[in-house]
Amino acid sequence: VGGSTLIAIDWGTTAARAYRMDANGDVAEERVSPLGIARIGNGRFAPALAELLGDWRDDPAPRLACGMIGSRQGWVEAPYVECPATLAALATGLARVDDGALAIVPGLITRDRHGVPDVMRGEETQLLGAVGADEAVLAVLPGTHSKWAYVERGVVTDFATWMTGELYALLLDHGILGRMAERTAPAADDAFLRGVRRGVDAGALAHDVFGARTLALSGELVGGDVADWLSGLLIGREIRDAGAWSRGAGRAAERVRIIGSDALADRYAVALTVAGMTAERGVAAAAAHGLWRIAGQAGLLH
Amino acid sequence: VGGSTLIAIDWGTTAARAYRMDANGDVAEERVSPLGIARIGNGRFAPALAELLGDWRDDPAPRLACGMIGSRQGWVEAPYVECPATLAALATGLARVDDGALAIVPGLITRDRHGVPDVMRGEETQLLGAVGADEAVLAVLPGTHSKWAYVERGVVTDFATWMTGELYALLLDHGILGRMAERTAPAADDAFLRGVRRGVDAGALAHDVFGARTLALSGELVGGDVADWLSGLLIGREIRDAGAWSRGAGRAAERVRIIGSDALADRYAVALTVAGMTAERGVAAAAAHGLWRIAGQAGLLH
Repeated sequence: VGGSTLIAIDWGTTAARAYRMDANGDVAEERVSPLGIARIGNGRFAPALAELLGDWRDDPAPRLACGMIGSRQGWVEAPYVECPATLAALATGLARVDDGALAIVPGLITRDRHGVPDVMRGEETQLLGAVGADEAVLAVLPGTHSKWAYVERGVVTDFATWMTGELYALLLDHGILGRMAERTAPAADDAFLRGVRRGVDAGALAHDVFGARTLALSGELVGGDVADWLSGLLIGREIRDAGAWSRGAGRAAERVRIIGSDALADRYAVALTVAGMTAERGVAAAAAHGLWRIAGQAGLLH
Repeated sequence: VGGSTLIAIDWGTTAARAYRMDANGDVAEERVSPLGIARIGNGRFAPALAELLGDWRDDPAPRLACGMIGSRQGWVEAPYVECPATLAALATGLARVDDGALAIVPGLITRDRHGVPDVMRGEETQLLGAVGADEAVLAVLPGTHSKWAYVERGVVTDFATWMTGELYALLLDHGILGRMAERTAPAADDAFLRGVRRGVDAGALAHDVFGARTLALSGELVGGDVADWLSGLLIGREIRDAGAWSRGAGRAAERVRIIGSDALADRYAVALTVAGMTAERGVAAAAAHGLWRIAGQAGLLH
């Protein structure tokens, strides 16, 4: 083992993903571990890193991580950088642990017009990996807490979080809807599309979610369709709201880059089309590419 | 025991409340039992009724019930009456069980402009008990599933449900917010008022609820304040949305009658004031008074 230029680590709450990157910035090798920070007790981060790296541990390449490893519950808290956040500000804000052997990318903070903060940790790096230095892009990272961000020529201008995935899981796993819904993997089927259409139309979310119950009661949604319709409603409403958020700031919202490659990202692509927007797909391993750019800016690459 | 004119029963999912009413339509005596329909197994409704009535069981007065006892999970399903629903339609739709000894009020169904149904069972009776025959009133019944309804001279014109209470409980008891919030009884304190102001302003709910987390992270909400702020946000948004729903149908929304007398109803009164609306309080024992009116219309009172 040797000859790599960067060891890039996307270190989140439930998993850690490490990449050995070559001199061209391409991913040469990838490792996934369940050693997310929630599984690491008593501050034993250094042994966790050694386990994650395995036989890469003697590789002299610099190591750069992003994600919840830099949070209050992580190895060290890397203070949030304020939006609009430049690549240079992220590189300047790197925190260092393990006698300087590991650098950690800070998260981002922004405040809306009411002064309420919003935060991200890890997604800023994916954004910089998925949006080129000359592009201006509205991007979404679908998930438990979906992040929408505007990235403009290497600057994360602003972002906002939607708790779409968490609301979906709470309503189905612990709410009254769960009793009448089969909890199968959601599909981009007809019930999902009906939900999306309901979502992209104006409405009151706390009222509209009740429709999953009443449509099941009336027999208009059966079995797994209840979950699909609810998924469509929540994603559709998120897309509608995020479009309004983007336009409200004088930015474009016709074209959205989806960062992610799983079934959820596929459902967002379908829902964006229903909403009359154009869906683009981001590159794979966006975190690795973002870490590469930040490492370059920070002078870590030799 | 004897001499009563009606035995009125508000029979819900988790509790049953029985009233002996005199010839003036006043409540002479009241009984509460935990024998909600969720606690009654194997269709043993007749013994449950006997237990609820106790020494009233030999009273020859007619018996009229409302609530989930008339649902598919109850004693017998009393088919929904469509909105706009008159007092006469409710009286005509009574279902009968126990060899005709108990009559049950049907629930209501309505459909919004998308054709999505909404339903209520029990609240229609409270509405008719809390709104006089000559009044036109926008009313709210706060709860796990808050109901907003417009009642116009004895007719329930239309209604809509908000899952506000359920969303609040799900987010705090099972969601990520619960880890940073003390789950104390919500109070109409400063944090609640801040939440209400955020709620009555336009916003994307699935985004705005994330503010409870970020305001806690930044130390702007501490301990029990997180729950109060979230309660305010959800109630404030419900009030804003319900006002828009009412105005969208060409109805007034300046004055709202709150049907309920608990701490939650008090918080709605505060929130309505913050939203610039006038809060009125409904009568106590609204279900008993509604059952009295329906019984009179159905010719049950002698």
